Amino acid sequence: MTEFLRVITAAQFIEQLRRFSRLAPETVPLEDALHRFLAADVISAENLPDRARSTVDGYAVRADDTFGASDSIPALLEIAGTVAMGTVPVFSVGPGQAAHIPTGGALPPGADAVVMVEYTNKAGDAAVEVTHPVTVQANIMEQGEDVRAGEPVIHAGRAVRSHEVGMLAALGILEVAVYRRPQVAVISTGDEVVAISRKPGPGQIRDANSYSVSALARASGAKAIPFAIVPDDASALRDALENALALADLVAVSGGSSVGTRDLMVEVVSALAGVELLAHGVAIRPGKPTLLARRNEKAIFGLPGHPVSALLVAHAFLAPFLRYLQGGELRMGPIGERVKALLPVSLHSTIGLQEFVRVRLEETAAGYCAHPVFGKSGMLSTMVKADGVIVIPMQVEGLLRGQVVEVTRI
Amino acid sequence: MTEFLRVITAAQFIEQLRRFSRLAPETVPLEDALHRFLAADVISAENLPDRARSTVDGYAVRADDTFGASDSIPALLEIAGTVAMGTVPVFSVGPGQAAHIPTGGALPPGADAVVMVEYTNKAGDAAVEVTHPVTVQANIMEQGEDVRAGEPVIHAGRAVRSHEVGMLAALGILEVAVYRRPQVAVISTGDEVVAISRKPGPGQIRDANSYSVSALARASGAKAIPFAIVPDDASALRDALENALALADLVAVSGGSSVGTRDLMVEVVSALAGVELLAHGVAIRPGKPTLLARRNEKAIFGLPGHPVSALLVAHAFLAPFLRYLQGGELRMGPIGERVKALLPVSLHSTIGLQEFVRVRLEETAAGYCAHPVFGKSGMLSTMVKADGVIVIPMQVEGLLRGQVVEVTRI
Repeated sequence: MTEFLRVITAAQFIEQLRRFSRLAPETVPLEDALHRFLAADVISAENLPDRARSTVDGYAVRADDTFGASDSIPALLEIAGTVAMGTVPVFSVGPGQAAHIPTGGALPPGADAVVMVEYTNKAGDAAVEVTHPVTVQANIMEQGEDVRAGEPVIHAGRAVRSHEVGMLAALGILEVAVYRRPQVAVISTGDEVVAISRKPGPGQIRDANSYSVSALARASGAKAIPFAIVPDDASALRDALENALALADLVAVSGGSSVGTRDLMVEVVSALAGVELLAHGVAIRPGKPTLLARRNEKAIFGLPGHPVSALLVAHAFLAPFLRYLQGGELRMGPIGERVKALLPVSLHSTIGLQEFVRVRLEETAAGYCAHPVFGKSGMLSTMVKADGVIVIPMQVEGLLRGQVVEVTRI
Repeated sequence: MTEFLRVITAAQFIEQLRRFSRLAPETVPLEDALHRFLAADVISAENLPDRARSTVDGYAVRADDTFGASDSIPALLEIAGTVAMGTVPVFSVGPGQAAHIPTGGALPPGADAVVMVEYTNKAGDAAVEVTHPVTVQANIMEQGEDVRAGEPVIHAGRAVRSHEVGMLAALGILEVAVYRRPQVAVISTGDEVVAISRKPGPGQIRDANSYSVSALARASGAKAIPFAIVPDDASALRDALENALALADLVAVSGGSSVGTRDLMVEVVSALAGVELLAHGVAIRPGKPTLLARRNEKAIFGLPGHPVSALLVAHAFLAPFLRYLQGGELRMGPIGERVKALLPVSLHSTIGLQEFVRVRLEETAAGYCAHPVFGKSGMLSTMVKADGVIVIPMQVEGLLRGQVVEVTRI
């Protein structure tokens, strides 16, 4: 049985990851900024709006002229003109006057409020009756009220959503500084592992891990660099790791499920020049035979060889770390929507291990119900059947039937 | 003021969308299947595993030989051989014998169970002591126990996650049938709208909508086709719509914020050959001036011209529809993580309108608190400050301070 050299907890694993630096910023066109994290505050050079505008369809007026107006005693105002969209009015609104104005129209000089069209009646072509009083500034967006020139409009660290894209476009900001996307070298090892296009011989298995881990890396905003399958051979493994460290920002190597190869992985990684072993063994289930090392700012994730364990460890640590490298927050546990659900059965858990329990979510009238997925831990079909996982903390002995638990959709 | 010709509710809008057909399936390589929806059941041609395997490191035995074994009276078994990963054992395990086996190793003929290494002691090189009894099938994954040949392993309609990629790779399934990605023509209209690279003249605004709507379309798995800005001119608008309908699966046209242009949009859309107007006006706030039309299986979304309204309507209807076209379920409301939050203030709402309230989420010890974002409804900065929205149903007069509400992160 493998001796784990440096077993740490899931929380300590995350703390080790937090000691890495984020990737360098780069400037990208606005079209490519979606889902990226801003590396610097965005400062607007302009006011938005550039001048006072109406927020409703109606009539620009002097508020004083509407004082006391009502349905029974409306204020009768003379039409001074009509504001056209995309133009600045050349006329002004004097005392006793009003101007047609569309939503978004520029406020004409002299006017200090807008009356909604609902509170007006036409009085021929040249006049309008106002039936409700308005106060100064009513239904007006002031110059710079949305965004003031010189002030930060979006802060560093924010993820760019459709909203931020719209704001940046409105301000004419055509490119932004975001954190670079990580390049992840994905390596599968094992004498028994064959390329997925091949029919496995007796006792062999296909390389599921590079595909699933690459998919998760891409889902996390990274670029996955696929590597050829490496046999259980120290020199081949060393060469592959050196190549990967030269090419990529991070190496995710899976394998070493058999006794001998687990030792091989830790021996080869520890012997690489300048590499510091941060974890060999993590107090989680499944996923204990996980390894973490660093060379300068590049991390090496040694994932278990078993497809289910490899994938769960990648969800628990690799995906949050990829998000962190790109400027996101680093938090414990898998990334995904978290929902509360009722547990219909009790679950036993081992004190001293953080456990990941695969569950299927059933939507009931009373909310979600989290059914643990049956089947042996190593079965990939249990992952496919699962909608998410419950993470049982280290110090907890189990969860009780009827308890409300948090499920992370992964 | 514009007369809305065919005002419908948000629920009716969704029901109209449900009458459209999904896009046609296409076959894509496994590497491109992530986040797509399967258009057909995936049937495995093979068993997984291909033969019985051990699920632990230990010794393959005949279960009968371990009957009554204990620490004080262990069963002493002769070592018949060692199973190497990636090979099928050429020896067999006879009565009174055992074989070293790694996790994942192929079960040798004769053996019917595996004893975990923890429950064994070496007795020289040629023998092992077993200190715990095992039952038949213990610590074995049977041939086809994970996936049985000929059976569906993933059902049509499921979204492909990292899990499904891993399973498909393990089965050697190199390509899958998924629904095609929609092509969305994104058009902004308005005499006052200028390209974002230009400095707006007096009374003009930059084209925020094509950028924000395109970003949301891309975030929803679609390809956005940007169109040039169309002035408020019936013939230019008609030409742009005809081009867009010819090129794309769906047209998202925003604009018509001023009184006259709202009329222009509905007139031009209604006059297009073969076009059926499904909605003109939706009972939501903001977003009432929304239009929906169809020509055969192609939808035309007429979004409001105001950037905030356009974006909220796109989140409420366009994003769910894009997901539906690609094989996902069609559900009411914006797509995003839904969290429960405490409302720290009361909110008034108008009966007869479904309202979207922008909120900022604060994480407290007691859970989330949803602070409504202050500022005029048309301000883009309110979207940037918001983490999500509360959707207040049509028939609700308001929400009370202290109430628990559902916030959709958008």
